[in-house]
Amino acid sequence: MGTTQLETVPEPKYWHLKTVLSEALDSEFAVGEILPNERDLAARFGVARATLRQALEQLELEGRLQRRRGVGTTVAPPRMGVAVGSAQGTWPGAVGDAWQPADCAPAVPPADVARMLETAADEQVHMVRRTRVSNGQPVAAELLFVPTSSVAELTGMDAPSGAARARVVLRELARLGLEGQDRAVELGSARADDARALDRLPGAPVLVVTTRFFAGGRTAAVSVATYRADTCRLTFGDSGGVEIHHDSDRRAS
Amino acid sequence: MGTTQLETVPEPKYWHLKTVLSEALDSEFAVGEILPNERDLAARFGVARATLRQALEQLELEGRLQRRRGVGTTVAPPRMGVAVGSAQGTWPGAVGDAWQPADCAPAVPPADVARMLETAADEQVHMVRRTRVSNGQPVAAELLFVPTSSVAELTGMDAPSGAARARVVLRELARLGLEGQDRAVELGSARADDARALDRLPGAPVLVVTTRFFAGGRTAAVSVATYRADTCRLTFGDSGGVEIHHDSDRRAS
Repeated sequence: MGTTQLETVPEPKYWHLKTVLSEALDSEFAVGEILPNERDLAARFGVARATLRQALEQLELEGRLQRRRGVGTTVAPPRMGVAVGSAQGTWPGAVGDAWQPADCAPAVPPADVARMLETAADEQVHMVRRTRVSNGQPVAAELLFVPTSSVAELTGMDAPSGAARARVVLRELARLGLEGQDRAVELGSARADDARALDRLPGAPVLVVTTRFFAGGRTAAVSVATYRADTCRLTFGDSGGVEIHHDSDRRAS
Repeated sequence: MGTTQLETVPEPKYWHLKTVLSEALDSEFAVGEILPNERDLAARFGVARATLRQALEQLELEGRLQRRRGVGTTVAPPRMGVAVGSAQGTWPGAVGDAWQPADCAPAVPPADVARMLETAADEQVHMVRRTRVSNGQPVAAELLFVPTSSVAELTGMDAPSGAARARVVLRELARLGLEGQDRAVELGSARADDARALDRLPGAPVLVVTTRFFAGGRTAAVSVATYRADTCRLTFGDSGGVEIHHDSDRRAS
């Protein structure tokens, strides 16, 4: 399975078709336009339905097409630039934060999050759920895991749940001195609850951004944010969060 | 097509199967182990082949499974943490850079890159090709586009092509004062040449990292780096490039 073997594999047929289709999208179709149905398209390009479907999947991965239930396949607008944090780093919920708190409940975090937080395997933490909307569209859903030890002053007295509870947890968290954060981005597939929040079906490709917040010499909170991979490009800028758009790219700062 | 309608859509069958399969992977299979063939798996879980295939695709998206030609489907090791740049920012080719220059040739950049560089539509630039290897595996391929105006001192005299030429271009570029950079991450599918470098088939899902380097008040170079989405998680750290691994996560700095 070396590189040599792959070099002798001819380009798959759907790959060539993808290139041809991509050029047709540029020259013949406008953003939002609905493509002809698969049978007509396959006939036009003289390929099998299966080949066409593979090429359409590629174009969907690349953000050129959107498939929507009950509508069909449409030409996608350019992806939105969505700013992910700043170099300096602030707590979730700081001024200018693009996220809206939706809910807060006690929950046992997934095993890998528990390891980062150094909580016991069955230990409950505060799980804050937030959503992010850009240009009127849901673009991301977040689970923020905050161990009870990070917000020790918190009482269960007022705002026991819901968005109000989420705001109280964020406010308490912000009392800690933030020492730093790091971030990882990887490909994932939308869990059922995230898919609902993002108006997608479960399993849709998403970009998963995991952020660890450090305070008091340990991981004080972990955020797992799920961005729609079809409509978003995540931007990381020196300028500390200016949104950069793909097609009107000029230096912002 | 609001959220409400999606809420009434029942969870697809492959989604439930994916969860069941994922638990079976945890409890019954070791990393690198080859899964039984699709027919046997479909029979064991009492599902149609098509449903099984969808569930396997999900697990591949999530990095749990790898499908390799001529081998079959194997249980994937945890994704590698691959550090993407530092907060401070350095020129490509600086000391400690993880990339190896492979080639350099004149080329007309893609339209979106030309827009960022503010070069004319048919203007040739230096196109440096580099590769990145981690733990003995190819993890990323990069095209670095450098306008001739950014390396004006460069002559065509020595090292007209190849890795030596690439190093000369990088050395000249590093003479400019780097004023800043920004970065975007998005989902893409591997182009044929990248796929070869990454030992994948064309169209495999990749994470595309586009970096703009600013010098002299303009974009002096643009890097388009393609990371394997199946094996990599991209890390962005305060610590300026310490690699963080998914399963042995402790604070590094």
